[in-house]
Amino acid sequence: MGMTAAIEKPYEGAFKGNAHYFALRVYIEDTDLGGVVYHANYLRFLERARSDMLRVLGIDQRAAIESGKGVYAVAEMRIKYVRPAKLEDELVIVSKLGEIRGAVCIIRQEILRGQDTIADATVTAAFLNSSGRPSRQPPEWVAKFEAVKGKTI
Amino acid sequence: MGMTAAIEKPYEGAFKGNAHYFALRVYIEDTDLGGVVYHANYLRFLERARSDMLRVLGIDQRAAIESGKGVYAVAEMRIKYVRPAKLEDELVIVSKLGEIRGAVCIIRQEILRGQDTIADATVTAAFLNSSGRPSRQPPEWVAKFEAVKGKTI
Amino acid sequence: MGMTAAIEKPYEGAFKGNAHYFALRVYIEDTDLGGVVYHANYLRFLERARSDMLRVLGIDQRAAIESGKGVYAVAEMRIKYVRPAKLEDELVIVSKLGEIRGAVCIIRQEILRGQDTIADATVTAAFLNSSGRPSRQPPEWVAKFEAVKGKTI
Amino acid sequence: MGMTAAIEKPYEGAFKGNAHYFALRVYIEDTDLGGVVYHANYLRFLERARSDMLRVLGIDQRAAIESGKGVYAVAEMRIKYVRPAKLEDELVIVSKLGEIRGAVCIIRQEILRGQDTIADATVTAAFLNSSGRPSRQPPEWVAKFEAVKGKTI
Repeated sequence: MGMTAAIEKPYEGAFKGNAHYFALRVYIEDTDLGGVVYHANYLRFLERARSDMLRVLGIDQRAAIESGKGVYAVAEMRIKYVRPAKLEDELVIVSKLGEIRGAVCIIRQEILRGQDTIADATVTAAFLNSSGRPSRQPPEWVAKFEAVKGKTI
Repeated sequence: MGMTAAIEKPYEGAFKGNAHYFALRVYIEDTDLGGVVYHANYLRFLERARSDMLRVLGIDQRAAIESGKGVYAVAEMRIKYVRPAKLEDELVIVSKLGEIRGAVCIIRQEILRGQDTIADATVTAAFLNSSGRPSRQPPEWVAKFEAVKGKTI
Repeated sequence: MGMTAAIEKPYEGAFKGNAHYFALRVYIEDTDLGGVVYHANYLRFLERARSDMLRVLGIDQRAAIESGKGVYAVAEMRIKYVRPAKLEDELVIVSKLGEIRGAVCIIRQEILRGQDTIADATVTAAFLNSSGRPSRQPPEWVAKFEAVKGKTI
Repeated sequence: MGMTAAIEKPYEGAFKGNAHYFALRVYIEDTDLGGVVYHANYLRFLERARSDMLRVLGIDQRAAIESGKGVYAVAEMRIKYVRPAKLEDELVIVSKLGEIRGAVCIIRQEILRGQDTIADATVTAAFLNSSGRPSRQPPEWVAKFEAVKGKTI
């Protein structure tokens, strides 16, 4: 019963101290003819983790978009591909908030398979208002970000 | 602690009787400019559910591919899109095995959001050997499929 | 010079009689670990061809969406995968309009590599107004569709 | 007739001096709920351009993969998103080869819409042998790269 409920509930990540953890499995859709995850698909994985981080912090992205409050967009991304991931691999993405100022927020993300680093990324996200212009991040969101940055396990 | 383990473990679906359940959340990557899930992406969701179903039954797709045993490919798909799904929606895919003969296996899949049907699909999967030719499904796999088909809750 | 212009211009399909032709090449992004095009990606190819068909007919999808006129959504898709396509393959999608009534439009699409059929699809598209409800297709669009259906080479 | 041939031929990019040009159109598949191209999809565009660049230089990626010679993989990517691209936008990707040494090759790529920069990327590609290990790029490929780097219009 409890088990039944769990099966019908999608995966949710969580924070441990100031680090957000998000696990996923590699499916056929993620691979390319090299038998490994196609490089652009790691960016989809990283976005899932960041979206989950917002959700865990109580930030409702969909409501923010639908109400015209605004949305985060990736302004810059640096990613280093260290090892390939393969079908059925169980990956964990560890995300940490960095500098937060004005419209901009830095997130460091690492994709791991067990102890091994698969990829390492630094993402600059910019908050855009409903007309697509960078604008100050909602102060109540920034407060949540700053609160979690100070946490330890 | 137990909780910690759970966070680092990707979602896994399960059978209830003869129906396999697989839950997922809609991310930004899945949407298009209409604000809803792009129609082709439901096929990715359906594949995740089918791959999970094999895994739950103890069938190791990756080993089968790497050892040259063979792989399932979609030979035919009929999908009816009933309602749109949106960002953050929690979806459940219910999959049931149908007729199984020779190289071919029929799977009925329904994508649900709560009680509402989002999409409805009938998938014909064909087992291909390592040279890409349809060939008889491994008998031990067929035995697993037939066993689960007969189950009730 | 003329050549220079051509290089900076994306590919555009065209009608031959009542059939719309659209060519594309298979890239790494389209493949999966089987070394062939991932089955869901053919639906992306088919959408490109349908979008190009609208554009060739003088229908501006983006303006229709932005002005709140409406948009086509896939209501049903039947696709048969006949042969796999591989990296660098040059494919041609041949699309023909079928029955057109009310909110609904049937399109038959075939994906070819030379003389060989790769996949075969029947798509039911529904015209949705800005609140996502099926509504009558713009009469000036239907007129264009009916005009091209009657054409011969 | 010539026209007919053109319709059935996918787009091909070309070099102007030492810069490779590759044009594409934005389709619905490329967009997200923000009404703009989803950030990970620009990486797909960049890969299409790089694959086309190899093809134009007479390098057959598919044959290299199938014969076990090896394949390029992205080792590092820095991308700056400057302006959003939208449905139906006609984009041009300008790619220039940078430093080439050992297993590694640097490519600078810019995505343009007319005179406007959409995104700017620096890609580090590593040549991997059939067991996935970085290995020296085929000397005949390096010769082609070096030859085109010296070209002027």
